[in-house]
Amino acid sequence: MSLDPDLEVPRGVPSVRHRVVKVREAGVSECQDHLAVEEPLEIRLAGINLTVTMRTPGEDEELVAGFLFSEGVISRADDLDVIARYRGPDGDPDDGNVMNVLLKGDARVAKDRLRRNFVASSSCGLCGKATIEAIRAALPPVRSDLAISVERLNRLAAAMHDAQSTFEKTGGLHAAGLFDAEGRLIVLREDIGRHNAVDKVIGHRVLARAVPLDRHVLMVSGRVSFEIMQKALTARIPVIAAVSAPSSMAVQMALAADMTLIGFVRNGGFNLYSGAHRVTGVPELV
Amino acid sequence: MSLDPDLEVPRGVPSVRHRVVKVREAGVSECQDHLAVEEPLEIRLAGINLTVTMRTPGEDEELVAGFLFSEGVISRADDLDVIARYRGPDGDPDDGNVMNVLLKGDARVAKDRLRRNFVASSSCGLCGKATIEAIRAALPPVRSDLAISVERLNRLAAAMHDAQSTFEKTGGLHAAGLFDAEGRLIVLREDIGRHNAVDKVIGHRVLARAVPLDRHVLMVSGRVSFEIMQKALTARIPVIAAVSAPSSMAVQMALAADMTLIGFVRNGGFNLYSGAHRVTGVPELV
Repeated sequence: MSLDPDLEVPRGVPSVRHRVVKVREAGVSECQDHLAVEEPLEIRLAGINLTVTMRTPGEDEELVAGFLFSEGVISRADDLDVIARYRGPDGDPDDGNVMNVLLKGDARVAKDRLRRNFVASSSCGLCGKATIEAIRAALPPVRSDLAISVERLNRLAAAMHDAQSTFEKTGGLHAAGLFDAEGRLIVLREDIGRHNAVDKVIGHRVLARAVPLDRHVLMVSGRVSFEIMQKALTARIPVIAAVSAPSSMAVQMALAADMTLIGFVRNGGFNLYSGAHRVTGVPELV
Repeated sequence: MSLDPDLEVPRGVPSVRHRVVKVREAGVSECQDHLAVEEPLEIRLAGINLTVTMRTPGEDEELVAGFLFSEGVISRADDLDVIARYRGPDGDPDDGNVMNVLLKGDARVAKDRLRRNFVASSSCGLCGKATIEAIRAALPPVRSDLAISVERLNRLAAAMHDAQSTFEKTGGLHAAGLFDAEGRLIVLREDIGRHNAVDKVIGHRVLARAVPLDRHVLMVSGRVSFEIMQKALTARIPVIAAVSAPSSMAVQMALAADMTLIGFVRNGGFNLYSGAHRVTGVPELV
């Protein structure tokens, strides 16, 4: 199996292609899969950081205008003087993840109108790469000799489904489950927020004095974002499996931190995005 | 059709029942539907607000411990002195949505360890009700004589699906679409973040000098949270339709602001949670 050693995301695109290994009952194939791009966007009001949001690039002016409107900073387009992409001190056009806003009138008054306060995210730099580099510097790659078989991975989804209540099966909540090296479910938690479900699972192990979790598999019911990978990395979890798709930044994080990232775990198969060396019993390439 | 005029959410429960009208091709029925509870949880560190997260109640201690661990505030359970529910100045046990944390050692040092900064959300009070009351005070109920037929509502999902690209149909992105009173799609936007997709749609109309949107329908591809309802209310959108489920707080918001909230728009049917007076052509009750 050969996976891309890294994942380059050109500035401003909404999706990228990444080589994945598709593991199915009928056999294994390699292909180019599309990933939704997840990149931070920093919104600055009169040069001052207002917020950073993880977004898919595209229509950034609309995102900024809609965010400022929803948060009560502006009430009409005429309140805006300029929405412009910040190009850096050298006019570098590659610094595409910062939008600068100037308002007509006093920006301080407008900021007071904010229904909530926002604050700079010091870990989110000007681009995804800076963010990942910052996290990588703070958190070394996962070290774990955990190996998990295709057969065991395919059983995780069913085990998690069986542990959920009827209500949760209706799809009202996100679920996160932690499995040990033998594939036994240690703890399952649900929440309306996907990050909260993961925090509850990790918090359960913190309170049980059972971290780091470097012999464990984290499975989530939905998609995998950058933030879930960051939480898993902090807990030193080597294998993350998801019922749905990972974002571009989740894959970048997994590659940078030597984490095994598995998506679309359903119907007896899955896609392997990084860290193939921890997966055993992979059928021959067809 | 009779819907509950309000929705009481007892403290600490993960789900509640709410009377909904199920509109199907075969006819209409009323039933009690389960809603995932969404409530704010405020985390205080040594009495100082650290963050507010919208969560499903249950295992709040784990959520707090996992959050502090993921954010680098603690590295083990022994860093914690106390995680206790705040009971208010009068020891009121109903104030269940604030957790107070005391750390061993200097809390200021721990706060400096935060990878990101967090800040009080001034709109999120001690409980969902306070939040909703605050928003209600700031934003009056929607006033709109928009009426939309069952037939037209049933066509929205297909119209949105047709407008998405192949990649987006794979489920990699959240979508939000704005429709006019005649059911025509005005703008469709996708993003890895569900709130961003809605911000882009509203921002598109702000920049076009076309707000308020009091003759429009907003449709989203996933679930409806409190925050999406808040954005819609700010833009004065009277009808919100979703492919998936609303949270308890989304329904509470809709009831408080006289918004029409429709969920599970799929397979030629939908569930009506509030604001039935804007839906016309509803078949007879079976």
